Amino acid sequence: MIGITIDEMTIGQSASFAKTMTETDVGLFGGITGDLNPAHFNEEYAKNTFFKGRIVHGMLAASLISTVLGMHLPGPGTIYMKQDLKFLAPVHFNDTITATCTVKEINKEKNRVVLECKVVNQAGEDVIVGDALVSPPKASKK
Amino acid sequence: MIGITIDEMTIGQSASFAKTMTETDVGLFGGITGDLNPAHFNEEYAKNTFFKGRIVHGMLAASLISTVLGMHLPGPGTIYMKQDLKFLAPVHFNDTITATCTVKEINKEKNRVVLECKVVNQAGEDVIVGDALVSPPKASKK
Repeated sequence: MIGITIDEMTIGQSASFAKTMTETDVGLFGGITGDLNPAHFNEEYAKNTFFKGRIVHGMLAASLISTVLGMHLPGPGTIYMKQDLKFLAPVHFNDTITATCTVKEINKEKNRVVLECKVVNQAGEDVIVGDALVSPPKASKK
Repeated sequence: MIGITIDEMTIGQSASFAKTMTETDVGLFGGITGDLNPAHFNEEYAKNTFFKGRIVHGMLAASLISTVLGMHLPGPGTIYMKQDLKFLAPVHFNDTITATCTVKEINKEKNRVVLECKVVNQAGEDVIVGDALVSPPKASKK
């Protein structure tokens, strides 16, 4: 159970994960983080905001980036070191968003990789962008 | 239902939110994000890793920063623009972590504020640090 080692990674390599973000997801995320901001939980408040309705927590949408890194590229064994996030557009309830991470820099000496990460919605609009720095899993001793 | 406007903010002002991070939180977070990395869900795997047991998702722990920003400082009406995250140490199951955000830069002309954010565990160790850029709520027209 080990992901991709740095020797198996190439610049431009990418992986994605897509998910429909539901009211249920927002409810559970609010409970486990304590973030009950009315922008996510109060429709009467939210319909009078710039976004005209409840939106998904930005950090919940951003978390799909971590899903790609931890599950796919580089996958299990990865150590997550840094993440930059720029929130560009809201995610509305029932939007289907796709997180994609693309290898941008490889430092074999330090076993560190920078990935350019992006979350887009079903209309192809960027909702979040930002770089990740990870330490990929090392090859298991065989 | 509006948070703190930029005119009410001062450099050094801070707010915190603390929460015990449980196995339940990790289970729900895995379900809503799709991140079922064995570091969080497979004890037999995790006990042989560097962290010697299952750990909390980094993005879940980091999300308490968003709780502080969205609920307390500046609070409801805040637009979350950027977040930098540096993951320094793991959060173990049942660790009680505290996210604190402290106002670092105020740009009244652009209505933008930078906050220095930090998540520490019950032993006082930094687990996550990073700056947030937000646009605080504007005063409601009265």
